[in-house]
Amino acid sequence: MAVQTVASTTHSVDLGPAAALSCRECGHRVPLGPVFACEECFGPLEIAYDFSGYDTEELRRRIEAGPASIWRYAPLLPVPADVAGKPNLNPGWTKLVKADNLARELGVTGGLYIKDDSGNPTHSFKDRVVAQALEAARAFGFTTLSCSSTGNLAGAVGAAAARAGFRSCVFIPHDLEQGKVVMAAIYGGELVGIEGNYDDVNRFCSELIGDPAGEGWGFVNVNLRPYYAEGSKTLAYEICEQLGWQLPDQIVVPIASGSQLTKIDKGLRELVELGLVEDRPYKIFGAQAEGCSPVSTAFKAGHDVVRPQKPNTIAKSLAIGNPADGPYVLDIARRTGGAVEDVTDEQVVDAIKLLARTEGVFAETAGGVTVGVTRKLIENGVLDPAKTTVVLNTGDGLKTLDAVAGTGLTATIRPTLDSFREAGLA
Amino acid sequence: MAVQTVASTTHSVDLGPAAALSCRECGHRVPLGPVFACEECFGPLEIAYDFSGYDTEELRRRIEAGPASIWRYAPLLPVPADVAGKPNLNPGWTKLVKADNLARELGVTGGLYIKDDSGNPTHSFKDRVVAQALEAARAFGFTTLSCSSTGNLAGAVGAAAARAGFRSCVFIPHDLEQGKVVMAAIYGGELVGIEGNYDDVNRFCSELIGDPAGEGWGFVNVNLRPYYAEGSKTLAYEICEQLGWQLPDQIVVPIASGSQLTKIDKGLRELVELGLVEDRPYKIFGAQAEGCSPVSTAFKAGHDVVRPQKPNTIAKSLAIGNPADGPYVLDIARRTGGAVEDVTDEQVVDAIKLLARTEGVFAETAGGVTVGVTRKLIENGVLDPAKTTVVLNTGDGLKTLDAVAGTGLTATIRPTLDSFREAGLA
Ligand SMILES: [Zn+2]
Ligand SMILES: [Zn+2]
Repeated sequence: MAVQTVASTTHSVDLGPAAALSCRECGHRVPLGPVFACEECFGPLEIAYDFSGYDTEELRRRIEAGPASIWRYAPLLPVPADVAGKPNLNPGWTKLVKADNLARELGVTGGLYIKDDSGNPTHSFKDRVVAQALEAARAFGFTTLSCSSTGNLAGAVGAAAARAGFRSCVFIPHDLEQGKVVMAAIYGGELVGIEGNYDDVNRFCSELIGDPAGEGWGFVNVNLRPYYAEGSKTLAYEICEQLGWQLPDQIVVPIASGSQLTKIDKGLRELVELGLVEDRPYKIFGAQAEGCSPVSTAFKAGHDVVRPQKPNTIAKSLAIGNPADGPYVLDIARRTGGAVEDVTDEQVVDAIKLLARTEGVFAETAGGVTVGVTRKLIENGVLDPAKTTVVLNTGDGLKTLDAVAGTGLTATIRPTLDSFREAGLA
Repeated sequence: MAVQTVASTTHSVDLGPAAALSCRECGHRVPLGPVFACEECFGPLEIAYDFSGYDTEELRRRIEAGPASIWRYAPLLPVPADVAGKPNLNPGWTKLVKADNLARELGVTGGLYIKDDSGNPTHSFKDRVVAQALEAARAFGFTTLSCSSTGNLAGAVGAAAARAGFRSCVFIPHDLEQGKVVMAAIYGGELVGIEGNYDDVNRFCSELIGDPAGEGWGFVNVNLRPYYAEGSKTLAYEICEQLGWQLPDQIVVPIASGSQLTKIDKGLRELVELGLVEDRPYKIFGAQAEGCSPVSTAFKAGHDVVRPQKPNTIAKSLAIGNPADGPYVLDIARRTGGAVEDVTDEQVVDAIKLLARTEGVFAETAGGVTVGVTRKLIENGVLDPAKTTVVLNTGDGLKTLDAVAGTGLTATIRPTLDSFREAGLA
């Protein structure tokens, strides 16, 4: 870490309201820098803000007059005030789709919404988090943006780096499918195949960060993780503003590392503290695929710790067997009166089709997980259909076509009206 | 056509400022209905509007206070005033990306912008046009939304119909690639494979429209074409509003049927007539792939008519060998002082990579055509690099991955720092 601490002290750091890094476990504070673990207890560091001096109504006006991107919330993020003028992908402000057809099918009467993050520049919520990491990388004087990934993150990092004028270097297992390689390679950065599996890739990246060879490198979800993670707060902000500055009653969030769910909770609480929404109870529900359900398993067993699993599911963007923020997720689900549930791969595919058929939204497998879990939670009486419910779709179905490859023609006919009538299509 | 005329007269038609259909060739006017060809001269029918009574500054305020979708321009479109409250995909208001990196590479000093329509709900500009056809279908009492397609249109129709509660029936050649079938089938409508090629599919659809079996069917780009086509005007509106209510000096538009280019010109002229932008010269440039360049060929030869070609290009969304609006495109390019140019498939691929590498925008092949043609026009001194230039990207690279399948890893290494250093990546 020594090298990167040097980088951070040789540049003046303006990250807006971000005041310091603070340990989530012991509260130890350190100056803003490219570090992610507490030097006292090895707990995760997160951003501590100084929101003092904000007038609620002035802040609301400033947000509403802001750009149609996450940068409308710049006063609440670890970014400089002039961030919207810097070259970046301007993600966010995606559609909150009022899902009346889906609500009818699921029996929801209190209002059902899909927060559809497939509308982001590279078509997943990762653009939100990478955009924060990019500003931190600028602030710390880094010149290379990096990550390990097998999917959405690779494209988000490659695209953001290209536009911002950073070098990028993305590490993937060398035998990834050709389609995914193309999606990551198109932005023209370094795309390095590692001879080994995804665990080998991650182990190598950790070594690189600790080595002089990694000098000037910002790994978005490692040494820039405290900044990166804050991007998920913007989902909470947008949902509340799009609901007319109101908290939703219930929100269903997919769980990979669990970070997104914890940051959505953080974002909701910040809005309450800032007076931008009225305080009232909300419930957060976590969604996993059965083939990678360590948090759901722990929740149902009443455990506080999460036992790692070996992932085996089509929902690859959620396939983290040892989720770092699992215990925090359990905490939040229990504190808010929510739950964590999982669905089978078959239910994931059914849910993808259900959402597409009812609302015209083609979700990634992660969206199938949240919609599927929503259906299951309603059937089990856990989620209240009379309450306002928001379900996250964090990615795009075009990126996980394989999962629904069985979907096909409903009929084949000759090019004649007779053949058309015979097929019963009139 | 008889059956559909009946449908139109048994429902009251409220399509906002749309007053009638008018023949582009002879000016003959007929009431709004699901017809597309002049009964006098077989010329194409288009919408005639009544914009009288609009106060410029009130209209501007109304637009600016409107939704973040094409419906902010509802007063200028053939849709009812309450269209934003009806279930539809709310497309449009996509990003106008200031492309400073690309400008530097191309030597553009006057301001270069990418209008990036990959941000639409199904990731192509087709969502704009289908949204207009949907409102016409509602107004005429149709219950099935239909089209023939081999690509973007199939998904746009399927998704729009699903959300709006219409039955959909999309016709495609039966032997289309599996990936494209999935993208069209996921929305759960009828997806009918026709034993034959794309010409057979189109011939069959024409028969169906004239037959009682087609009663209640709206073919978005056939019997609803006059409405459908107007959707492309919104690209012109958005570009001007996003430029601060200014006309661009130069705009580069892909040519398939040519309809989009003619409607962008129409939209620009309407803004001038309504006083929303200051009148000044603008140039419209058309872009084709060399493998399907009938309009470019005619332009260069100084012809007024377009000789059909047999398409052979990777830019499949532009592969219309006999473009219906070709002569109008020639007219507009010449009248505005623009041009029509084409690029090879290799140049298309290079341009896709150039745009991704410089701006983090992954374009469909059609976007490679416009960026490639822009580069060529600058090199040839036809496009003025000192003027404000807008280049359209009408679709998403995720849908044409095959075109850039050669893009891949830049290095392969073992998971060690030594191997990393040997590869020269530090
Ligand atoms: Zn600590
Ligand atoms: Zn006529």
